[in-house]
Formats: sequence, C-alpha cells, structure tokens
Amino acid sequence: MSALKNDRYIRAALRQSVDCTPVWMMRQAGRYLPEYRALRAQAGDFMALATNPELACEVTLQPLRRFELDAAILFSDILTIPDAMGLGLHFVAGEGPAFSKPVRSEADVRALFVPQPEDKLRYVTDAVSTIRRELNGSVPLIGFSGSPWTLATYMVEGGATKNFSLIKGMMYQSPHLLHQMLDVLADSVIVYLNAQIEAGAQAVMVFDTWGGVLTPRDYRDFSLRYMEKIVAGVKREHDGQRIPLTLFTKNGGDWLDQMAATGCDALGVDWTTDLGQARDKVAGKVALQGNMDPSVLYGSPERIREEVAVILESYGAGPGHIFNLGHGIHQTVDPEHAKAFVDAVHELSRPYHGTNS
Amino acid sequence: MSALKNDRYIRAALRQSVDCTPVWMMRQAGRYLPEYRALRAQAGDFMALATNPELACEVTLQPLRRFELDAAILFSDILTIPDAMGLGLHFVAGEGPAFSKPVRSEADVRALFVPQPEDKLRYVTDAVSTIRRELNGSVPLIGFSGSPWTLATYMVEGGATKNFSLIKGMMYQSPHLLHQMLDVLADSVIVYLNAQIEAGAQAVMVFDTWGGVLTPRDYRDFSLRYMEKIVAGVKREHDGQRIPLTLFTKNGGDWLDQMAATGCDALGVDWTTDLGQARDKVAGKVALQGNMDPSVLYGSPERIREEVAVILESYGAGPGHIFNLGHGIHQTVDPEHAKAFVDAVHELSRPYHGTNS
Repeated sequence: MSALKNDRYIRAALRQSVDCTPVWMMRQAGRYLPEYRALRAQAGDFMALATNPELACEVTLQPLRRFELDAAILFSDILTIPDAMGLGLHFVAGEGPAFSKPVRSEADVRALFVPQPEDKLRYVTDAVSTIRRELNGSVPLIGFSGSPWTLATYMVEGGATKNFSLIKGMMYQSPHLLHQMLDVLADSVIVYLNAQIEAGAQAVMVFDTWGGVLTPRDYRDFSLRYMEKIVAGVKREHDGQRIPLTLFTKNGGDWLDQMAATGCDALGVDWTTDLGQARDKVAGKVALQGNMDPSVLYGSPERIREEVAVILESYGAGPGHIFNLGHGIHQTVDPEHAKAFVDAVHELSRPYHGTNS
Repeated sequence: MSALKNDRYIRAALRQSVDCTPVWMMRQAGRYLPEYRALRAQAGDFMALATNPELACEVTLQPLRRFELDAAILFSDILTIPDAMGLGLHFVAGEGPAFSKPVRSEADVRALFVPQPEDKLRYVTDAVSTIRRELNGSVPLIGFSGSPWTLATYMVEGGATKNFSLIKGMMYQSPHLLHQMLDVLADSVIVYLNAQIEAGAQAVMVFDTWGGVLTPRDYRDFSLRYMEKIVAGVKREHDGQRIPLTLFTKNGGDWLDQMAATGCDALGVDWTTDLGQARDKVAGKVALQGNMDPSVLYGSPERIREEVAVILESYGAGPGHIFNLGHGIHQTVDPEHAKAFVDAVHELSRPYHGTNS
C-alpha cells in the first residue's frame, strides 16, 4: 500500500503535530451535493447506491473533488449490521430508516447472530477496497459502524422514535435480554470493523447517535460498556500502520472522560459542549473531533469563518484536533458554504500549529 | 385566599425544610389516564379541552384524585402565546403542534405583538381561577409558559423539526431579527405569567424544551438572556405569598450554574445529568426539580422504587429537591406505575429529611 500524501487526519487523531488542523464533514457525501442527487436519482434509492461498490465509491469521492477535505469516509449506512441479520432495512420517505422485522421478543433476540462480513456484508468491504484504490493514497479512508446501543435502538423501535419507549421498556423490564442483544451486536461490530480495516479502511469510527438519551448510569451499562468491548477487539494496527479509532456519542459531552478511558484514540464532540472544556476533561488522553453546529453553514461565509475561529481558539494550540461538524451536514446547505468552511479551517488554524499563515 | 394544606412543593422550591420530598409529574394530566382520554374524546380535540376552563379544570384535577401529588399544574399548551398572536395553532395527528402562519420574514417578525391576557388568553386565566377554587387549598397550582427560544422555534419552523434548520438559519443569517422576536416573546411571557399569578397560580415554570440544541454561546445569547428578563419581570410575591419560579432547559445540564445565576428559585433537571452533580453545580443557590427518566415507569414497581432510591441518594440529605420526571410522562405508561412512583418518593425520602419512615 502506498504512503499517504496527506496524513493530517491520521496524525491529528494520534495527537501528532500537523501543519494545520485537518477537516472533514460527517455526511460529506450526501444530498446537499447536486452530483449526489443526480447519481441517487439514477440508482433509484439510497440502498441501491450503498450496496453497489462502484456507485458507493463514486459518491464517496464526490465531495473530495470539490473541497480540500483531509479524509474520505465510506459511503454506507449505520444499519448494515441489523440488515445483514435479516431484519429488512428499508427507508420510509420523510421518516428515515425502518426495519420490517423489529426485535421485540426473547425469541427475536435469541435468533440474532454475528453476520460474517464475507457473506452478507461483502458489498461494504468491496466498496472499501474500491474506494481505497481510487483514492490512491491522496487522503485516508475512514470506515465506520453504528454503536451497539444505537443499533439496538433502531432494531427494537423498528424505526425513528421520539421517546425510545420500546427500547427503554426492554431496558427497564428485561435488562438481561437487552444485554444479550448488545453483546451479539458488539461482537458483530468488531468483526465488521476488522473486515473494513482488512479491506483498506485506515481509520474507524463508531457512531453512538442515541447514547445521549440515557441516564449517566444507563449510558455506562448499556452503551459505553459495549463500546469498550469494541475498542478492545478492533485491530489497531494493519499493514504496519496505526488505525485510529474514534468514538462519538451525540449529546455525550458530560461523559467524555469516561469515553477517553476506554483506550480509543479520538472522541467526537457535538456543538453543545465547549471544545476547550472538552479538552480539559479528556486531559490529553485522546484527540477530539468537532464541533461546529452544522446549521452555522446556513450563515454567510463571513459568519462561518467567525465560528471556525471561535472553535479553533476554544481548542487552543497544539495537536489533537480534527475539525468537523458536530453532526451530519444538512441537506439544504449550499455547497459553496461547505467550501468556505473547509478553507477557513485550513487557513485560520495554521497559527495554532506554529505554522506561518 | 386560604392557606395551603400541603405546602411541600412551595417550601421545597424555596429550599425550606419539609417532612418528605414533594413530587409531581410533568404532563401528569394526560393521555396515560383513561379518564383523560374519555373527556378528550367527548371534547373533540386537545384545544377544545384546553380552551374550556371547566374542562381544563377537570383534567387538571384528574391525576390528583388518583395519586398523592404535591402540586397541580395548569392544563394548557406551551404554544398559547403564539396562538394568541394569530399564528393559528393546530395539532397534526402523529406530528404534534403546527402553525398555519409561521414566522419567516422580517415583515412577519414586525407584525408580532404582546398579546393581552384579558383578551385572547382569557381562557387560560379563567382556567387558573377555576382550578384554584376547586383545589380549595389542597395543593398549590403551578402556572407555566414556554420559553421565548422554544416559542420562537415552533413559530419559525411552523411545527415539529429534527434539525432546527429554519430557526438556526435565521439565527446565523439574521440574528437581529431573531433578537427582536425573542424580545417581544419575553415581554409576552412576563405579562402572561403575571396574569396567571394574579388569577391564582401559586408558582410558575418556564419550559425551555429546545434550549439544549444550541451551542453554549448561542444558549446564553438566544435563550438564557430572555429567561433572565422573565425572571426579572415576573411577580415573585402575590397576596402575601412568595411565588417560586422554576426554569427548565431540557438537555441543559451543563448550564445549570448559569441558569441558577438568573435569580430564579428552582431549576428543572433531566435524567441525562446526575442530580448530585447538579446540586454541586448550583451550590445551594436554587432548588432542583427532577430527574427520573419517564421510561423508568415502564419498569416494574420494584424497579421504579429502586430508581427513586438512586435519585434520592444522589441528591442527598436536606431540602431543595422537588421530585419529578425529567420530561413528560409517556402516554403508554400504566397509571398504577405512576402511583408506585409517587408513593415511593414520599416513603423513601423521609430519612433524607430527618423524618422517621
């Protein structure tokens, strides 16, 4: 494998010095780009894109042609694992993902198994190796998975939810059943991320979209504990290279110290937490990724630069910061504003790394 | 006005000693009660209930007949103010509240005005005085309003939202316009809460449902600042009695110290924050209300008692705690479980107040 031409993302995730702060955007391959909408219209729907390695590769690369991004992220869905378990993932217009066979009973939980990536998830590892080849060492490729708690949430609720009544009902009524499910999911995530790494992913990220709806105690027991297992089980070196692992719990700002203690390399931070305070909290144990509110991209390029400057100042000097949005880019954002964001990060961050601007 | 037979709620909100921890439940008058569903079916819809003082009174009293609650809360909606501004509040099945005339332009903002309670909000103050009369001094009546930021969110989005794109777009593109709107709303909330107090509300609460979706800086500028204005403008004494004022920002656990500095009497805390840490954070400045995850009520009565015990221990000994859920009770909860919750709080809290159990 060729050496990376731009390794800022990897270096920052490992808290090594960089010339300027690396930046990428969650959901950077997505509907705010007209070229994405065109390809998706051709393909038919989201899963048709995601399950076709050539199309997934093309979509992954689209934002890199427009913006000076420091990383690519595999175009896929966080719910591929439960889909491979046979739960029937589909997308309901205006409502998001849904499962035709949600997990509700003890028998449903007992029927769960660890999907072998070479079988039902081959389209993912094929996409990874295709993208890796096409990137040709320009920037690193990030692989990812949903967290066990987040996957379980969708699997039990069967789709979008406001109150998390079903999954929390299971949590408070039958905690052992939920633990059994989370354990199978943690094993599945480990096997899945390792397969992505073997196929060429140079970094991995675990998205815990719904950990933040739990009490501090339940977060530790039902989400963090299983991410800990993943951190312990995922390959951290491949082909002679360190593979940085990032954990991201949305609305998990209060728990960053506990997340850092898992032994991961980096943590995602959303915009509800001050990045300087987050840095104090993790006390140099991990790198931090974040944390601009994606809605700032509705502001003018000047307003975007102002917010980038505030966040850079909040993090302060030295390595260990990967700039990102605190959540996925919104569909209605002007791509020119995304460009202003990416450029502002590179330009304004140089002084924080002792580099002349 | 007669003296209160049960003044635990008022005393706890003012951090005075009590025999046991007072308890009430957000949305305690609601769809989980069959008698509520029956009355609502008769009335036709939610607004038909809320705008009829006799029916609003009946619905307010229903949970008090079942459970040993220490406070009643006015049955109403948080969006009465924008409705009185002419925005056309209605409810879309399965989606929640919506406005037929959302606020989108500068002209829309300029057309906003402070609704006079004696005019379009008379149904609210009539409900307050009716409920107060029917309560006959048994427990205090809490009046309430949405916070300016939360009201603005619904007014601009026009209904439920996931990304808050429109209101945040306004915030980042035209902050002055949004400030103008929030200022009219703060004035409206002051006049509205004072009218509720004059009609008989013995405590008031401001619900900032959506403050937690903001960055720390935007929270201070666009939500907290206007709640501060409300704290300064609302009557804190009426008829010789102190009127406790509670602020509640959902997902605002990080900002409790700043909220306490507004001069309010109590703060609502949701379940994502440890109550003991919250108490440390506010350093004796205010009382705390909370903070059980409403989903715990899906657990068995034993599980509910266990969680009540954990929260009581987390708060610790001494006054200043009003037990509540961290958000409204879910519609699918068994009323017997709500009873187990209320009884557990009274029973298990006595040792924390130096009272024999």
